[in-house]
Amino acid sequence: MNRAALIAQIRRKKSFLCVGLDTEWSKIPAHLLETEDPIFEFNKAIIDATRDLCVAYKPNLAFYEARGPQGWLSLQKTINYIGEEHFTIADAKRGDIGNTSRLYAQTFFETYTFNSVTVAPYMGADSVQPFLDFPNKWVILLALTSNEGSSDFQIGLQDGALPLYEKVMRKAMTWGTPENLMFVIGATHPDKFADIRRIAPDHFLLVPGVGTQGGDLDALCQYGLNQDIGLLVNASRGIIYAGSGLDFADKARAAAQEIQSQMAKFIK
Amino acid sequence: MNRAALIAQIRRKKSFLCVGLDTEWSKIPAHLLETEDPIFEFNKAIIDATRDLCVAYKPNLAFYEARGPQGWLSLQKTINYIGEEHFTIADAKRGDIGNTSRLYAQTFFETYTFNSVTVAPYMGADSVQPFLDFPNKWVILLALTSNEGSSDFQIGLQDGALPLYEKVMRKAMTWGTPENLMFVIGATHPDKFADIRRIAPDHFLLVPGVGTQGGDLDALCQYGLNQDIGLLVNASRGIIYAGSGLDFADKARAAAQEIQSQMAKFIK
Repeated sequence: MNRAALIAQIRRKKSFLCVGLDTEWSKIPAHLLETEDPIFEFNKAIIDATRDLCVAYKPNLAFYEARGPQGWLSLQKTINYIGEEHFTIADAKRGDIGNTSRLYAQTFFETYTFNSVTVAPYMGADSVQPFLDFPNKWVILLALTSNEGSSDFQIGLQDGALPLYEKVMRKAMTWGTPENLMFVIGATHPDKFADIRRIAPDHFLLVPGVGTQGGDLDALCQYGLNQDIGLLVNASRGIIYAGSGLDFADKARAAAQEIQSQMAKFIK
Repeated sequence: MNRAALIAQIRRKKSFLCVGLDTEWSKIPAHLLETEDPIFEFNKAIIDATRDLCVAYKPNLAFYEARGPQGWLSLQKTINYIGEEHFTIADAKRGDIGNTSRLYAQTFFETYTFNSVTVAPYMGADSVQPFLDFPNKWVILLALTSNEGSSDFQIGLQDGALPLYEKVMRKAMTWGTPENLMFVIGATHPDKFADIRRIAPDHFLLVPGVGTQGGDLDALCQYGLNQDIGLLVNASRGIIYAGSGLDFADKARAAAQEIQSQMAKFIK
């Protein structure tokens, strides 16, 4: 999916919501555990309940890997079920030497046909470039993450000048373009969004940490939005585990609806 | 496997060689492609040919993921076949927010029973700690990697003081101990090993980049060895693809033997 199609979808749905499919076995409602593929059945119900309210889905790979080979089958079925309308993100946080990153890219872009993959920047240019080499696919690079540990290295000043996350962004902007590169910026840093928009006015930002992790949507929209919206705001647990009974999908829809309504105010 | 058992194995075998099982489909000898599980059959032959010459095996997960669910079955069979004698490393370079890192740790330590997993430090303490919480398991943290991109961020001075890789090491040494934490230091930086031993005199270092990537074993041993040896030197392509015909395992053994002979000189 290219940038124009993503923006068109956002404007049409008045939503820049990404639903995180962090499907944990222990949180699947009991009545689904008797089905042949509980993870897929759970995802299918969540997707059916939220399809018109969100523009992207983001399975976190940890939750699928943890189930062994069956988890990858569940992932494949989930991706197929999502289809072409939504932007899909493999939240994998991969990154390795060049020939290895190339294989990871093939896996997520070709074997599993994701539109994008999250990549960790620590290993530098040749660990990221192989992902950018795939036409019409996206890298979503970790810059300033939502967790407490983001303060350990990401905000330290590098070479007496820029915080590491800014150096990562500025370097990466020489590797990719707003057409194939986004950044992960946690919603738990609302004070940083004005700065980040000065660094990268045009790039989309994937913003985790709204809801369970405490990020505030209005605060980040105030400085994070650009003329093309430019944000994908992810919510995972706050939506998919809004309920735990037979009506879990209705509860998930209500939670997604609430976020989408807040978002609609910002989309003219 | 604990530190004492690893050191005892190194002294017994006069080897600190780790064989990287980066098993690429396109490089599997033709006669194995007709078997039911070519990746496992290749690994099995390599393991049989090198078992007495090395102390560790390191499958790089990218090569297994790329084969879909079948790749994970091949990985499981490989781990089972390696058995208890060797130190096993899941070269996965994972790292995510806390609840997600915990799942990755479960996957590699419990589902696949690896002794250790490589972890990327960018997301900080709470992305690494869940791996360290598993008793008798190891984190091998990326510090100074072997690839060209290691110069993009890892050697930049943080807060006017330490290169990022050194800050990563010093912080991580407050999270883990020489009993459950190692560092990845690329063999392509032989000039850095003296410094690194001043930072971390006791920790084991996993050293990739010997052979195909150009690292020199004698140079890194000169400064990298400590009183407990303290090095695991990895070779992947230089060993497993030393041959490509019916005798590929013999060629792999010869390549491993050559490295082990060099290593034996350093072990009294």
